[in-house]
This record gives sequence, structure tokens and C-alpha cells, in this order.
Amino acid sequence: MKILGLDPGTAITGYGLINADKGAYQLEEFGALRTPAGRPAHERLCMLYDALNSLLDRSQPDQVAIEQLFFNKNTTTAVPVGQARGVLLLACAQRQLPISEYTPLEVKQALTGYGRAEKQQIQYMVCHLLKMDAPPKNDDAADALAIAITHAHYYRGRKLRGEIS
Amino acid sequence: MKILGLDPGTAITGYGLINADKGAYQLEEFGALRTPAGRPAHERLCMLYDALNSLLDRSQPDQVAIEQLFFNKNTTTAVPVGQARGVLLLACAQRQLPISEYTPLEVKQALTGYGRAEKQQIQYMVCHLLKMDAPPKNDDAADALAIAITHAHYYRGRKLRGEIS
Repeated sequence: MKILGLDPGTAITGYGLINADKGAYQLEEFGALRTPAGRPAHERLCMLYDALNSLLDRSQPDQVAIEQLFFNKNTTTAVPVGQARGVLLLACAQRQLPISEYTPLEVKQALTGYGRAEKQQIQYMVCHLLKMDAPPKNDDAADALAIAITHAHYYRGRKLRGEIS
Repeated sequence: MKILGLDPGTAITGYGLINADKGAYQLEEFGALRTPAGRPAHERLCMLYDALNSLLDRSQPDQVAIEQLFFNKNTTTAVPVGQARGVLLLACAQRQLPISEYTPLEVKQALTGYGRAEKQQIQYMVCHLLKMDAPPKNDDAADALAIAITHAHYYRGRKLRGEIS
């Protein structure tokens, strides 16, 4: 099963594509969708939408996993990041792709078994599980791979428990 | 010039369409785009996108004005409202419609000349300028009309000052 993980952002949306088969994960690709700073928000949203559609056309994932956003303090970015996230959700939903959302806590627990894991521990597990020599230099791409693995982990659990066929 | 004002929201997006001609405003229509509660966010964003596209097809506005969002306290709604706003901006940008954004302060100043005007004063001015007997019952539609008038006001100012042709 091909899973696309997405870490939405205004300037950079990280993505990570993995193949999950019975608890084994294989790295397909990772990267970042970027939009140029200094352009109006609506133009950048158009570019992001087109970039994700190109990625979906090319990579043909079976499922999509995306980070659930929480903002406690830094509210100035909540709306712009929400806008980017809305456009990403729309593009996936228009293709009837199943979309799952995970909190940062769920990502940490799925990858390390520990809800307060540090960023480095997450990156170490991403590398380990996907047999990479080093984590992606881009943090957003690394986070997107972690989200894809998280979905594979919980999806397999639900399947083993007979909750999905 | 036909101006569509939009007041984005998760469950309800208010819209108001006016015709502005040399400082005179004419009401075309107003209403709300609603998505069913209880459905997943991505489905509701799809519905909102389709609903706005139908409205744009039917009403053919020349310009769009949308409220600029600020969140100081209630951050739990910032992301969902941002998502809805992102989808609205996308649909307008895909048609190359000029989009202008206004803060609540700018709306208050344009309609009443006073940045701390109460909601009732705004609604009174919307009714007065559009020759309506009563404001729309739906607050979001009333706000959308106020945003459309705000754009007509500032746009005419810029035109009179020769800033736009």
C-alpha cells in the first residue's frame, strides 16, 4: 500500500511517500512543495494545489496521511497554514483518496512508543525503518515521512484487529 | 462593477453580491454556503469549493473581496476557518479574479468612518447603502455585503486618485 504523508506549511509543504507491506516499510520518495515568498496568498495556494496534483498524478498513492494542527501560542501562522492545509485536503478529497489525520503525539507514539520523544529520536526511527543513511535535510520532508509511517502503523493495527477489511 | 464579498467560515460562508457604479451601490443577492456538520473536514471543503464555483458560474463577479482573519484568542477555530478560506481563495484565483482583503477595522471605517463601530451600526449602513428594508438575518451574509461595499469604497478611492486605471 502506497502512503503519502503530508506536512502542510505556507512556504514549504513536506511530503513523503512510502510503501507499506505487512509491517515492512519501503521508501519511495520524499521532498518539498515550495511556493515563492512575496507572492499573494491566493497565487501561492494555486501553485500548491497544482504542485500536489502533479505529485498525486505521478505517484498515485492509495492513502494520504496529514498532520493535525494545533496552535496554542503562535497564532499568526495558524490561518496561513490552515489555508495551505485546506487546499491540500481539497486536492486529495477530489480524488476520493482516503485521508487520515494524526496528532504530533500519535506520530511520536507510533515511531518511538513514547509521546514525548525528541525530534532526533523521530528522525532516527524514520531512517531506521526506511533504511536510509541519513534523514532528509528538509525537516518538513522528514516529518511527512514520519506521518506516512504513523499511518501505516495504525492502519495495520486496525487491520490486525479486524476493524477494517 | 460586480463585487462578491465573502465571509469565510467552516460551517457557513456568507456571501454578498453588489453592483457598484460611481459610488452608488445596488444589491444583487446575498446568502450563505453551508456544509453539513458531522462530515469530515476534507468532504466539507470539497462541498464548499463546489458551492463557490457554482456561485461564481452563476453570478460572474468582476472582483472578489474577503475578510482578513485575525485570531488573538480563539485559536481552536483558526485552522478550520483558515482551511475554508484557503479553498475559497483557490477557487477565485483559478479564475484569475482580482481578490482584495480587508481587515475588520477597514470594514468599519469604510462603512461608518469609525473604526470602533458596533455591529448594529455596520448593519444599519449596509441596509441604508443597499436600500434594504432589513439586514440579512444571517450575520455572515450581512458581513459579506459589508466587505463587498468596503471594497467598492476603497477601489473607487484608488481610482479617483489615479492609482488604478
